[in-house]
Amino acid sequence: MEEIGIVAVGGYNEMGRNMTAVVVGDEIVILDMGIRLDRVQIHEDAEIDRMHSLELIEMGAIPDDTIMRDINGTVRAIVCTHGHLDHIGAIPKLAHRYNAPIISTPYTTALIRQQIEEEKKFKVNNPLVALKAGDSYEITDSITVEFISIPHSIIDSVIAVLHTPYGSVVYACDFKLDRAPTIGASPNFNALKKLGRKGVLAMITETTNSARSGKTPSETIAKEMLRDVLLGTEESHVGMIVTTFASHIARLNAIIEIAEEMGRVPVFMGRSMEKYLMAAHELGFINLPKNVEIYGQRKDVDKALKKIMTEGKEKYLPVVTGHQGEPGSILVRIANGETPFQVESGDRMIFSANIIPSPMTRANRYALETKLKMRGARIYDDVHVSGHAYREDHWELLRMVQPNHVIPAHGDLAMHSAYIEMAEDAGYVLGETVHLLRNGEVLFIEP
Amino acid sequence: MEEIGIVAVGGYNEMGRNMTAVVVGDEIVILDMGIRLDRVQIHEDAEIDRMHSLELIEMGAIPDDTIMRDINGTVRAIVCTHGHLDHIGAIPKLAHRYNAPIISTPYTTALIRQQIEEEKKFKVNNPLVALKAGDSYEITDSITVEFISIPHSIIDSVIAVLHTPYGSVVYACDFKLDRAPTIGASPNFNALKKLGRKGVLAMITETTNSARSGKTPSETIAKEMLRDVLLGTEESHVGMIVTTFASHIARLNAIIEIAEEMGRVPVFMGRSMEKYLMAAHELGFINLPKNVEIYGQRKDVDKALKKIMTEGKEKYLPVVTGHQGEPGSILVRIANGETPFQVESGDRMIFSANIIPSPMTRANRYALETKLKMRGARIYDDVHVSGHAYREDHWELLRMVQPNHVIPAHGDLAMHSAYIEMAEDAGYVLGETVHLLRNGEVLFIEP
Amino acid sequence: MEEIGIVAVGGYNEMGRNMTAVVVGDEIVILDMGIRLDRVQIHEDAEIDRMHSLELIEMGAIPDDTIMRDINGTVRAIVCTHGHLDHIGAIPKLAHRYNAPIISTPYTTALIRQQIEEEKKFKVNNPLVALKAGDSYEITDSITVEFISIPHSIIDSVIAVLHTPYGSVVYACDFKLDRAPTIGASPNFNALKKLGRKGVLAMITETTNSARSGKTPSETIAKEMLRDVLLGTEESHVGMIVTTFASHIARLNAIIEIAEEMGRVPVFMGRSMEKYLMAAHELGFINLPKNVEIYGQRKDVDKALKKIMTEGKEKYLPVVTGHQGEPGSILVRIANGETPFQVESGDRMIFSANIIPSPMTRANRYALETKLKMRGARIYDDVHVSGHAYREDHWELLRMVQPNHVIPAHGDLAMHSAYIEMAEDAGYVLGETVHLLRNGEVLFIEP
Amino acid sequence: MEEIGIVAVGGYNEMGRNMTAVVVGDEIVILDMGIRLDRVQIHEDAEIDRMHSLELIEMGAIPDDTIMRDINGTVRAIVCTHGHLDHIGAIPKLAHRYNAPIISTPYTTALIRQQIEEEKKFKVNNPLVALKAGDSYEITDSITVEFISIPHSIIDSVIAVLHTPYGSVVYACDFKLDRAPTIGASPNFNALKKLGRKGVLAMITETTNSARSGKTPSETIAKEMLRDVLLGTEESHVGMIVTTFASHIARLNAIIEIAEEMGRVPVFMGRSMEKYLMAAHELGFINLPKNVEIYGQRKDVDKALKKIMTEGKEKYLPVVTGHQGEPGSILVRIANGETPFQVESGDRMIFSANIIPSPMTRANRYALETKLKMRGARIYDDVHVSGHAYREDHWELLRMVQPNHVIPAHGDLAMHSAYIEMAEDAGYVLGETVHLLRNGEVLFIEP
Repeated sequence: MEEIGIVAVGGYNEMGRNMTAVVVGDEIVILDMGIRLDRVQIHEDAEIDRMHSLELIEMGAIPDDTIMRDINGTVRAIVCTHGHLDHIGAIPKLAHRYNAPIISTPYTTALIRQQIEEEKKFKVNNPLVALKAGDSYEITDSITVEFISIPHSIIDSVIAVLHTPYGSVVYACDFKLDRAPTIGASPNFNALKKLGRKGVLAMITETTNSARSGKTPSETIAKEMLRDVLLGTEESHVGMIVTTFASHIARLNAIIEIAEEMGRVPVFMGRSMEKYLMAAHELGFINLPKNVEIYGQRKDVDKALKKIMTEGKEKYLPVVTGHQGEPGSILVRIANGETPFQVESGDRMIFSANIIPSPMTRANRYALETKLKMRGARIYDDVHVSGHAYREDHWELLRMVQPNHVIPAHGDLAMHSAYIEMAEDAGYVLGETVHLLRNGEVLFIEP
Repeated sequence: MEEIGIVAVGGYNEMGRNMTAVVVGDEIVILDMGIRLDRVQIHEDAEIDRMHSLELIEMGAIPDDTIMRDINGTVRAIVCTHGHLDHIGAIPKLAHRYNAPIISTPYTTALIRQQIEEEKKFKVNNPLVALKAGDSYEITDSITVEFISIPHSIIDSVIAVLHTPYGSVVYACDFKLDRAPTIGASPNFNALKKLGRKGVLAMITETTNSARSGKTPSETIAKEMLRDVLLGTEESHVGMIVTTFASHIARLNAIIEIAEEMGRVPVFMGRSMEKYLMAAHELGFINLPKNVEIYGQRKDVDKALKKIMTEGKEKYLPVVTGHQGEPGSILVRIANGETPFQVESGDRMIFSANIIPSPMTRANRYALETKLKMRGARIYDDVHVSGHAYREDHWELLRMVQPNHVIPAHGDLAMHSAYIEMAEDAGYVLGETVHLLRNGEVLFIEP
Repeated sequence: MEEIGIVAVGGYNEMGRNMTAVVVGDEIVILDMGIRLDRVQIHEDAEIDRMHSLELIEMGAIPDDTIMRDINGTVRAIVCTHGHLDHIGAIPKLAHRYNAPIISTPYTTALIRQQIEEEKKFKVNNPLVALKAGDSYEITDSITVEFISIPHSIIDSVIAVLHTPYGSVVYACDFKLDRAPTIGASPNFNALKKLGRKGVLAMITETTNSARSGKTPSETIAKEMLRDVLLGTEESHVGMIVTTFASHIARLNAIIEIAEEMGRVPVFMGRSMEKYLMAAHELGFINLPKNVEIYGQRKDVDKALKKIMTEGKEKYLPVVTGHQGEPGSILVRIANGETPFQVESGDRMIFSANIIPSPMTRANRYALETKLKMRGARIYDDVHVSGHAYREDHWELLRMVQPNHVIPAHGDLAMHSAYIEMAEDAGYVLGETVHLLRNGEVLFIEP
Repeated sequence: MEEIGIVAVGGYNEMGRNMTAVVVGDEIVILDMGIRLDRVQIHEDAEIDRMHSLELIEMGAIPDDTIMRDINGTVRAIVCTHGHLDHIGAIPKLAHRYNAPIISTPYTTALIRQQIEEEKKFKVNNPLVALKAGDSYEITDSITVEFISIPHSIIDSVIAVLHTPYGSVVYACDFKLDRAPTIGASPNFNALKKLGRKGVLAMITETTNSARSGKTPSETIAKEMLRDVLLGTEESHVGMIVTTFASHIARLNAIIEIAEEMGRVPVFMGRSMEKYLMAAHELGFINLPKNVEIYGQRKDVDKALKKIMTEGKEKYLPVVTGHQGEPGSILVRIANGETPFQVESGDRMIFSANIIPSPMTRANRYALETKLKMRGARIYDDVHVSGHAYREDHWELLRMVQPNHVIPAHGDLAMHSAYIEMAEDAGYVLGETVHLLRNGEVLFIEP
């Protein structure tokens, strides 16, 4: 049977818990194993690291990979394209079921290793294979995976290409076509165009922002906006706190650079800040100037905040967790008055992040901002650009790769619909060359 | 009677038709005389340049200055802060009623002169006084006006300060605190702080974006976004058309610079493009490279579009009117197929503008974009930053100028409300030190 | 080839221009031939009744039935389910291409006859067959159409069922499950359940409101709201004008009844008011009390409005066209001051209609309401309930009819997506038993 | 000093924590003492009944009545207009500071008594005076309070009028002009018109829905919609659960009536259901048929739910708490699977309530609905009409009462702004006859 199967395991009906399986003859490659955090959030007392897979599947929090039982073939590899939790977060719960290595870029591999170590329920012993962007790896005699550099809101992201006897399958989840990502590699357009020229059987692509018109602004824009907010003020002595995605190393690097221009010491606080930043540092993705301070543990954080209060807020630039109002994060604790840091009238809270569009995070953010404002803080919101391609970036990638078939993934029906309409503009036909899959469905494609 | 009167003539209940009068003893200075275009738009057949003032007042299109009859005193000057129509557009209809000079910066003066010349109903013979930003002018023995540089979305904008025996009145309509406006002067913070130290009796301020959190992004951001859209593509040969505000000289200048990087010839098209650009050029605000082409008349525009079709779209970057879908604008004519320019699949239409939030412009834009898309065009929307201060810019200006009283202007109740809440954070009290005026009301302030 | 083909001709990518063809062996039945008015609206000078089909197809205004050339078989009938223009409006442009009768209920037939008579470009000579709800008609030896009563926002609406040798095809566009439609028949649940028990091969269904939660309120609710607005006031002497859909006979009937309670004479004004009302009257769907006045021609309308001004607004209840702000409609002319009717402060304008969600109608409505308010009118908006099934009505119909296959139609991708998610809850599977078609596509279903 | 002072204590900047003081010479009457629940919600561990007033004031949860220290005069009475918590919820925390009786209608008095009994921090010994709608009470020699019947979403609501030597002050918080409230009295228009004829000095009015066009639908509409949802289905045997405001006695009564038509036993569950319903029953506001069951305690509720599962869902109509997704409410416990009630596919959850527009309740509702849907429930949302006057009801009341001065209360700046614009249409002038107060401000009005 000379055809390739695309199994939509998770992330086709929703944002989060991404997982796709590609079936080539009797061999299978799994792409991503993510978690859907808002499904965890609605269960107040859920302790993920102690929960069983089946419980999490029932909650809709991780991909329902029980459907894999009905797929003929053996899983030969699990490939992860970047280190966000909606791509690697289910590994501790699901990977041990497969006798297969986990292949990802070095930074992603480091994060996966941490995930596995923090897991309390399952032992995950799959070999971890760190494959650099630009390199290829022979999974089996007939399947080779190639990693192509692509910017996203986390470093060391790639588009994965499975080269098979029946043609190539491109997996572009997630990406932006940022020619100036400030840190890390630009899109490898040569490799993508080369793929297009050689012929691609199918492309599976994220659709998060496919309804947004135009082109995702470059990370350079976020950096310039941050610089403008942090440096562009006559009230340069006030307290300023930045909060952003701990995993967004390019953003953290921009903050370090701007802090230097401000003459302030950047102080990173929070467990995840420490985790992501140190991993990036150890792998050489980021240089940390000598004066940078990093505190992961609560007592160290509080000590540092006390020092800032004593020595003067104008000397420091705290960079903290809490941009989504996560309970227990540093910024929430500051807003609750649970740390030595006193928010005073005119202090600035800079959210270098969007609000994740879920009612749960909206509520958390609202509570956080309300408390901060009641203490006199000034809010700078959305000093941020997205890491996901807008409609015209999708247009460009699609025309560059020219796949025979394209499958929207990593989104809900609204996002897929926007993608389909764009693909139709480019000549694709729904049901023939652009395919709408739902979680649990399989699409077979002939070369 | 040692007090100053602030007369809210227009623009206090709405966006557009701004006009404020400041009464000092028996002398009056008028600040701005604008038009409200969406009130004209809802009357399909209205020909403004032939209409009488009273008719336009009844339509709510220009300020109802008949209330000035009840104000004791003589108008000694009309001061305009910048050249947008909501600040100067009613001059042809109202200025002749006052025996007073019109004082504005050189670029604004040039635009006012054009307005007066185009008027068909009234003769306006008021002397035009061009006063440079940074300079002062003695209106009467007791009133001097000072112009302080401030960036906005049109060059040569100022904050006007009336120095009077009873104290200073600051008129900050419109402004952004852009430290890198790409063209023209930065905010003159020294002058503003000096005012604050000396003491200011009252500040009248725009409120357009006072509900938006944070800080207005710099014009530099718009330039970088434009550069990214125009240069950051592998499909560099396709047709590209930019449309933006003809009066936004900084933006036009950015486009010229980027066109050069692209190796394309910038071609400005449309009557207002020619008008604003030539005035800026003549006054030395902008350098036009030799290869720039500018066409105002319809037949010249069509000839140029034909040339572009013949010689190759990839050689030119047309910059045209029509960003709001205005009937008769160049882009609308292109979308209707009424020009020699053929839109082909993949051609890019770059809207370097927001959509003015009125149902009429939304409908025009929708019709325009629908027609362009049906011809295969790709839309890049909102490659733009605002020219109006966001909430934290207002916070900063307010704390810098420290007026005894602050009066929100240039907006509707929702905008004023957002401003009031910000001013309350800064210690102002509604009805005591921050005042909510409605069109037609007068506020008297004692020093 | 024992299968049935469903051809999505129009209305699958959008609201409006509905047309579906069902292929049974070598025989074809066309279901609906509608027009998409917002595509006409964006072309200001379009005169539909003089335009050629191909031009209208290119504008996206009528279904692109040129794809029918590629479908094997002969069209044996055109079946229309109700008299709205998005279901019958393209008949004057397309029906003459088919040598087939047009089958519809008596009221729909009357409206189709009017459409054909008003057409200036084409001669349409297809036989018109008036088939009563509840009756069946043998189209060919193998195909019989059955009409099942169903409420909608126009009287004499039906669900059409094609009984064929390979199974039944149900066409449920448009409907609501209103058990108290105030006029006309309730849903024929017995017939629908009987279909379900016998087995249905496929159901094609509208999806307009499938994203709205719950159940469409009954027309009774609209009647009660109208009564409350018209009778529930202490200021019972003021001028009141109602505007609503001229084709919504149940609503017009409610107004007549309420006018009687108010002691006012109902006066219907506008060409379409006269057209739809008289047709309903002639066919016996509505009783008109003796005092009802109806004026279609402009000069008669103006004369009547003059009489109302003379005799007293409190004696009359004008019911006029213009609920969407249509240029030239009676209410727009009143708002423009182009009729003898003087709007005074406190007069009430009751919109017994929603705003059709297109930027063009939003702009028209905004202009209309603004002008009315400037004259002192008070606006009562959205005194209305929808004629389209909400999500749970769809759930109920789907479970009653139990088709093997269901095909969302009459909507855009967002509407279809909401339907698909509901159908999935009911056990349907995308691509297997619930099918997403795009304009121009064909689905073949085996019994 | 012949003037009246209006002190805006709370509820002028926000929804919730309403409190106004009226100063007449050296005597003061307090109107309402409410709590703002969303300020409590953002502090997860807040236990209100054990918290001190000053702490709650700092949180913005109750009115900051410390400003009363600066008001000359003695508080002679606390008057509450109805029993919602945003009007009576702060009594347990604040009333004991005033040596004054609490005057309210009988039902409101019963609820206040419960509030006081549940309080754990303070002892409140103020005399409770139950005054019937339509009656008057002489507070002091110079001040008499009159209660005028007015419908709202809780029974026994009134407009309070203070008759003083300097004129009357009308307090219309909250109300709707419902002529068919299904239970309880209609608006007493005669009394209101009589007030208008005699002359009213000032009216303080709620503004919640002043931005919504038209007229609030009557409670009759909600009843009809509920009947349609509950009775209008062919799947009449499925499980159905209704959730609504426990304090909305008219709605509860409607449900009882409809349950009878359905042949189901209404079972009210939840502590607040029991509390409000029993109080209404004891005071004779509602007749409870013999078969009605009411369970307040958790173990009784669970027992009843078990019985329903055993005997058949089709026999019962549970009416439960949880319409806003409140943690610990019955519906939330059902959704969590913490009760014996098993939600099955097709069971109906009818929310006879709007979603309170706060991010916290939106998150709670989202979590609740998601969990219910995951168990197969069908959601009927917003089977509800508001209890707050829309714009035209405000127009009508204002023109009926014709106060010299009107003061928007009970809302935020956006709501007040909408009211002001309406009042301007009616001839009022901001700052002269319509006054915008902020929490903590005092307005003095001369007769």
